[in-house]
Parts: sequence; structure tokens; C-alpha cells
Amino acid sequence: MILVDGAERAVISALDRGLAYGDGVFRTLAIREGAPRQWRRQYAKLAADCEAIGITPPAELLLRGEVRQIAQAEQRCALKIIVTRGPSERGYRYDTKTPAVRIVLSSPYPQYPPSYYDCGVRVRRCRVRLAGQPALAGIKHLNRLENVLARAEWTDSDIAEGLLLDNGDCVIGGTMSNLFLGRSGTLVTPDLDRCGVAGVTRDRVIHAATARGIAITIGNIGWRDVLSADEAFLVNSLAGVWPICELEGTKLSTGPLVRSVQCWLDQDDDADLA
Amino acid sequence: MILVDGAERAVISALDRGLAYGDGVFRTLAIREGAPRQWRRQYAKLAADCEAIGITPPAELLLRGEVRQIAQAEQRCALKIIVTRGPSERGYRYDTKTPAVRIVLSSPYPQYPPSYYDCGVRVRRCRVRLAGQPALAGIKHLNRLENVLARAEWTDSDIAEGLLLDNGDCVIGGTMSNLFLGRSGTLVTPDLDRCGVAGVTRDRVIHAATARGIAITIGNIGWRDVLSADEAFLVNSLAGVWPICELEGTKLSTGPLVRSVQCWLDQDDDADLA
Repeated sequence: MILVDGAERAVISALDRGLAYGDGVFRTLAIREGAPRQWRRQYAKLAADCEAIGITPPAELLLRGEVRQIAQAEQRCALKIIVTRGPSERGYRYDTKTPAVRIVLSSPYPQYPPSYYDCGVRVRRCRVRLAGQPALAGIKHLNRLENVLARAEWTDSDIAEGLLLDNGDCVIGGTMSNLFLGRSGTLVTPDLDRCGVAGVTRDRVIHAATARGIAITIGNIGWRDVLSADEAFLVNSLAGVWPICELEGTKLSTGPLVRSVQCWLDQDDDADLA
Repeated sequence: MILVDGAERAVISALDRGLAYGDGVFRTLAIREGAPRQWRRQYAKLAADCEAIGITPPAELLLRGEVRQIAQAEQRCALKIIVTRGPSERGYRYDTKTPAVRIVLSSPYPQYPPSYYDCGVRVRRCRVRLAGQPALAGIKHLNRLENVLARAEWTDSDIAEGLLLDNGDCVIGGTMSNLFLGRSGTLVTPDLDRCGVAGVTRDRVIHAATARGIAITIGNIGWRDVLSADEAFLVNSLAGVWPICELEGTKLSTGPLVRSVQCWLDQDDDADLA
């Protein structure tokens, strides 16, 4: 199902700035048992990302109604919300009075092998580097060509994800996931103030760890830090938590921290829109 | 008029990757007297940009027919061509067999004051910096949030353009134009191998200068280089050549080189699709 500004249709204006310039933001979230998961966090992040690029976010009540409509119809799916700055005349300048356009659409829930969760995933190192842009870092905006180029680097279906570095040799995350390392009983995750996307599940892990007294460091991570970590794992809203069992041919072990994180997130599988 | 894959309609699929990820490229060109200007160069650049990100470009004959249809109907307009990787399922991975989607649309020819061409334009320095991404540098792709943010920095209609620097303090160009400096009878233009868009008019200036024995340097340009140049000017396909007469309050003089460049481009106003 696809809703554009609340109406069931599958098209948008060819003059939409989301198409013209990638001028908008998006979210991907899980619908399970007819309810969106982590709605409050997802909406808060969507609204914050809109505001970060000067788009007035759609009202929570309005968007929630559309999400609920799809959630109840589909029961279990991946839900994507795109908010664009709407249509405009030619040119980069925009009219602040044009209301944002909302696109809410469902797609099949991805069928990841259960082994991804249990045994872990094989991961590669991407060649393309993420550019440092503090003005857009962390935002899940529609300018995602770097991710597209990175994902096109491999076709081997045994490789579940690719890790991206920035041009300062810092590891930033996966093409579609955030990275955590376990080190001496503490967690480490990349600083995303220059590039990368700060996902809702990353936030959940940070909060869950902090609430349980597990120290967490947000900082620069080099390639060797990943290889030498006690454990490493990837998170996103659809996949949950995947241990990394192999990185560019090097075996990594799956330790107790990743199992704790999987457990924490299962306990906090908020469905407050149900 | 808007043509999507050759059909007269004003909408595209909400699943198009041009919307989802800015996964595509575009051109803006002038239609005058019922003919597109610099069609061969524009198509060549469009095709090269498509190939640079792994999109099979639309056939020249196909696209030319659509451009001609609009050109003959409108006579004088700004023409925009967008080529996207087409619709896809959720996820960054793409299917190489999906044909590209073509969007050809017209908008009113911009009415710039004649003084922009004769006396020059006032220009500001943008605060946002361009991120260095060699994999995408020079390409006119649909990931243009930096340009949108830069253009939103000012509303004063007396300011015609803003200059953008990269995070290494090099001046790269305008939000919608390429920059040239005149220095001791030679031309200098920024190197675009880390960021920026290499426009067709920039290419025309480089070729015209070279053909006339005027030395041209492509290299790093600092802010002080612009301020201390004998002359400075901006080019794009719709505006042509604008001398910069004032830069952040500093007056710049308009010299003989910019007049020569204006003259060269007028002489080479190719309309081979007429």
C-alpha cells in the first residue's frame, strides 16, 4: 500500500524536490502484529531530521493515522516514510510556505536467515568512502548515492553487509546499519558528527546500555579496532542485532555483550501505537 | 510540458529511486527559437554522468525526440532532463536490468536583469562547505542537498549567487554556476575532482579559450585568489556569462577577458537540433 499525503496512490509530482534534489528525509520501521515498532522514537527522529534541513515536519497525529492505516491492513511489513519539501519551480531556492509531502509505503518484511541473528553475518569493507559533511551528518536524508554505490560493490549473497569508512580512515557504519564494538565489557560506536546516519536502533542500544550501567563510548574507530574487538555487531530497525562473524575473511567471535543487546531490545519492543 | 518516458504526464512512481535515494542525474539547458542549445555536449555529459554511477543512459535518438517535441511546442524555455535508475524494491541494491526513467520538463526561461550580463552580479560567500567525494565529483547527480542548504542562506534578491568552498578552503563554484578568474591575461577555474559540478558551459569556456591560445589553469583557488583576481565571472547554460562586480562587499572590476568569453560563447551558440 502507498499513501501520498494520505491518499492511496502510487505516484508523486514529477516536480517534487525529493526527486529533483533529494530534498527530504526518510525512515524505515518495522510493522509487526499490526503495530509500528518504536513509533515515538521514529517520529521524533523524523521530525528532528526535517527540522535539521528546514522542512516543517508533518504533524504527529496526521502521520500516525496513515501509519496505523497501513499497519492494520498489512499486519507485518517494512514501512517506509518519506517526507519531502514538496514540489517547486526550477532552482535550488525553496518557498518556506510549501507544505511538506508525505509518502508512507509498505513492502514485504525482509526474510533474513535466522543464522544472521544467531551465528552472525559475513561483512565486507567497502571501497567507496563517505564524505564528511557536518551539516548533514546523522540525518537520514534522501541524498544516498554513497550508500547506493557502496551496496553495488558486491553481489555475493553470502555477504550481508558492507562497512564504510570516511576519508579520514574512520569506520562509520554499514550501508544500512549502525556498528557497535564490544571491548573489555564496554561498548563503542562510531561518532557520526561528520557523516553516517544515526539510526533509531543505535539510540536504543545507547540508552539500554546506559540504563544498565554498561559504559559506552562514542568515538573514532579505525579498521584495526574492529578487527581486534572482542565482538562486533550491526543494528537496524528491521534486522535487529546481527553479530559480525567474519570481516573480510577474518573470523570474529560472538561474545556475551551482543547477546545482552539482543535481549535488551527484545524486552523493549515498544508498540505503543497498537 | 512534462514527458515521463515519452508520455505526457506530470507524475512518477513513488517507488522511483530518484526520489528514494537521489539515484539519478540531470541536465538543465536552454531552448531558444525552438531549438535546444548545445545538445551534443549536453547529451554527452548526461550519458557520461549516467555511466559514472552505473545507469545505462537513454538512447540519444529517443531523448532527442522528446527534447525536440518540447522545444517545438515551447520555442523558448528552460529544459530540464532527469534520468533516474527507475523504480525498485526497498533497499540500496539495484537491479541492473531495470531501464532508466526519463523525465523531460520545461519551465519559463529565467528573466535575469540585463545588468547581470553587462555590469555584473553581486555574490556572497556561503557558510555551508562542500564535502569532498571523488566518486561523485563533477557529476550533476540528484544528491543536491548541499546546494539547497547553500541557496537557503540568503533571501536578498540583489545577491545573484553564492560561492561555495570545500572543507579544504578551496573555492569550488557557485550554487548553480561554475567560476572562472582572469589573471594576467590567462584564465583559472577550480579543479572539480573532489566536489562540484562540471557544467557544459564550463567545458565550452575551456575549449574556446584553448582554441584561441588563451592559457587556462585548472587548479586550487583560495578565497583571496578570487578577491585579488583581475576579473571573475560565473557561467551556466541558462545565464550565460555573468561578471562578478561585488563579492561580500568588495568591488571587483570587469575586464577584457570576460567580454571575450561572452563573445566566444555567443559565436558558438550551437543549435544543431533545430
